[in-house]
Amino acid sequence: MHSPLIQDLINHLKYLPGVGNKSATRMAYYLLEQNKAAALKIANSLQQAVEKIHHCESCRILTENKICQICADLSRDEKTLCIVGSPADVFAIEQSGIFKGYYFVLMGSLSPLDGIGPNELGLPKLFEKVNKENFQEIILATSTTVEGEGTANYIINELHDFSGTVTRIAFGVPLGGDLEYVDGSTLGHAFSGRKPIS
Amino acid sequence: MHSPLIQDLINHLKYLPGVGNKSATRMAYYLLEQNKAAALKIANSLQQAVEKIHHCESCRILTENKICQICADLSRDEKTLCIVGSPADVFAIEQSGIFKGYYFVLMGSLSPLDGIGPNELGLPKLFEKVNKENFQEIILATSTTVEGEGTANYIINELHDFSGTVTRIAFGVPLGGDLEYVDGSTLGHAFSGRKPIS
Repeated sequence: MHSPLIQDLINHLKYLPGVGNKSATRMAYYLLEQNKAAALKIANSLQQAVEKIHHCESCRILTENKICQICADLSRDEKTLCIVGSPADVFAIEQSGIFKGYYFVLMGSLSPLDGIGPNELGLPKLFEKVNKENFQEIILATSTTVEGEGTANYIINELHDFSGTVTRIAFGVPLGGDLEYVDGSTLGHAFSGRKPIS
Repeated sequence: MHSPLIQDLINHLKYLPGVGNKSATRMAYYLLEQNKAAALKIANSLQQAVEKIHHCESCRILTENKICQICADLSRDEKTLCIVGSPADVFAIEQSGIFKGYYFVLMGSLSPLDGIGPNELGLPKLFEKVNKENFQEIILATSTTVEGEGTANYIINELHDFSGTVTRIAFGVPLGGDLEYVDGSTLGHAFSGRKPIS
């Protein structure tokens, strides 16, 4: 029905997460009817990014430089390392302003069935980094999914020779969360992780 | 926070309709982490489409050919012409299978304040087409918005010399629509357009 080039464009826009046939059609016609300049800007940015973006050599986050902005910032706390699953986690933590150390980004979770093992997550590089640098605390901030927990446990096992502290971020009821709307597993974490009030 | 190239990509993805900062960030990282091939396909399609897609010389729909597939199909009913506001309207009508004639796509509505006059909607071309070809019925299927109605009325006025019939699609309660959820204007149309039951 659509002309072949437009149909191609719609099919390709559907690769975007959260974009189905209707949204892709709307996007394609919007760009072609009303904003060809934006279409070219998107195309150009995609090509530039695919060509130049790669993993930071130190923390595996995505960057166009050899070393990312965070790893290159010498004013940060060199004694703590936070291990997270994805770049989005880094931005969430950075926006909270709560953490001032360095990061290591796994870019995923261990998932043997999908062929994602320790090498795919750059774990040899992580252990090399831990041995070479002088961290006093390693904070595991992988997510609470089964894969995230599995990955955290694997890393904890491998770090048994680490002389500093290995910690896991706390799980429990979120601030402002109404108890009645919190799911059972979270409540379980909140109870099992309860602390005495001084 | 994001590296400059990724930030550019996110900013440009936000031009897509319905895409805000969070979605654009998710799209950018998904493409760069997991599907660089898709990113290049999208970039390539966008460039190809921007370069080659233009208005059909006959009906103004978007196509990469001189004449679109519908206008080039000589098996259609040459006696009826349907005037619609956008390519999406054409696809909706085509999918219903209810209409077999030809189309003229205005690519918008009259809106003098936004600088959209008869020339921007290709109306001189429409009137030339009506004079040259041998239509017996012209169906106005512009939308029911104030602009759509205004555009329909303008075209009706200009077509006063047309020897065939000019019709407007019917407005009323949609099939399967529960009366209590139908808005007042639609109910107004449904009542004023009521028909005797033979």
